[in-house]
Amino acid sequence: MRGLTFLLLAGIASCENTSPPANIGILLFPGFQPLDVIGPLDVFNALSIQRYIHTFFVSPTSTPVPFGAYTLPWFTPTGNFSSELEGSFIPSYTFDNIPPMDILIIPGGIGTRAPSPRLDETIKFVRDVYPKLGYLMTVCTGSGIAARAGVLDGKKATTNKLSWAQTIAHGPKVKWVAEARWVKDGNIWSSSGVSAGIDVAVAFVAEIYSEAAAVKATNMLEYERHTNATDDPFAILYGLTNEKNSTNQG
Amino acid sequence: MRGLTFLLLAGIASCENTSPPANIGILLFPGFQPLDVIGPLDVFNALSIQRYIHTFFVSPTSTPVPFGAYTLPWFTPTGNFSSELEGSFIPSYTFDNIPPMDILIIPGGIGTRAPSPRLDETIKFVRDVYPKLGYLMTVCTGSGIAARAGVLDGKKATTNKLSWAQTIAHGPKVKWVAEARWVKDGNIWSSSGVSAGIDVAVAFVAEIYSEAAAVKATNMLEYERHTNATDDPFAILYGLTNEKNSTNQG
Repeated sequence: MRGLTFLLLAGIASCENTSPPANIGILLFPGFQPLDVIGPLDVFNALSIQRYIHTFFVSPTSTPVPFGAYTLPWFTPTGNFSSELEGSFIPSYTFDNIPPMDILIIPGGIGTRAPSPRLDETIKFVRDVYPKLGYLMTVCTGSGIAARAGVLDGKKATTNKLSWAQTIAHGPKVKWVAEARWVKDGNIWSSSGVSAGIDVAVAFVAEIYSEAAAVKATNMLEYERHTNATDDPFAILYGLTNEKNSTNQG
Repeated sequence: MRGLTFLLLAGIASCENTSPPANIGILLFPGFQPLDVIGPLDVFNALSIQRYIHTFFVSPTSTPVPFGAYTLPWFTPTGNFSSELEGSFIPSYTFDNIPPMDILIIPGGIGTRAPSPRLDETIKFVRDVYPKLGYLMTVCTGSGIAARAGVLDGKKATTNKLSWAQTIAHGPKVKWVAEARWVKDGNIWSSSGVSAGIDVAVAFVAEIYSEAAAVKATNMLEYERHTNATDDPFAILYGLTNEKNSTNQG
């Protein structure tokens, strides 16, 4: 009985922990889409002037992580040329030394398509860390990594509309929502492609911190946010509808 | 006479070089605004699938460049707390070994406010390299660096609306335009704050490459671009008008 009381109290304490999240890790892997990382990051950057915020990059190793898809040994460009996007982000922490982390953000990009076993350690990290997180946020095809980790099973989520079929194949048990700029299910916030990462981060700030904080952040970024999560012109553009393309609904 | 002919021919050759720009350098300095860098970069990233594009970061030294304003020794946060934004971008090239560069992009950020002599070398680089460029693009308060380099003198330009007064003070001879999402004058394209960098880059791609290339890029980024350079809700928000705040016009 004492054990049960303790568990109940621990549960209540956990649910009633209303201090807003401050520590935000962003996952890096070779070939990430840079705007998927920096869009949400700069929303939290703008928030960091209003309250204490700690953002950092996490990766399996401390090696700088290149974003250019053309550097990936397994990637074949579609054209008869190979562009060069030089640049790497330096991980702040590796999987075995991450500091307190309330939110994990998973970006998308060509790198999410890396053949096994290249992303196995990263997928395992997401699976293992998810129960300890306050929130998980995915941008673009980053939802494919979360799906492969199993953490989206039974949950509603969305993803990039151009890579829709390819990404949802990673999560047959996920309730994929086709017409959505972003989707919230429990503590998981997922967004559509690339620039939608800015909108999901702003929506998150509005709900979890305050509407005033979100407005102040977007005014600073001179960003006209999308306020309607289900208004998705890119679903229409790529011929996706809830009726035809959403999965496991109802 | 032979000398004059050579000069004329050289001039014509230079003017008639109509091959679109391919090589894009982005300037880094401590405390740059990350979205000012990555917004335009990801527009060119999307373009890089359509044609050969080479992007790279440039800085005075090869030392990784941190974006977090809180790391700047001269910066005092306004609140009674100091957030932590961990992360650095690695310069691809230093000022003395840059590869061919058709476009230079100058981002803004708290770092543009660094007291002299911290940015002197960077400002000198902009002054020296401008005559060799096809195009110069500034984002946000990056126009303050271009102004200090003198390259905006007599030209129309815009900048961040929240930091308007502080930034235009760097360019008393610049024709500052208050109501503008972005401004083009000759080969200089300047944008308003942070996220406006995406719009100026898209407008640039539409004009210099093609409208079709711009549409393809924004569809990939799932970005609803601003198509009207003079529609500036943030000028209105911050109480700026052409009549009151634009300078050296007419």
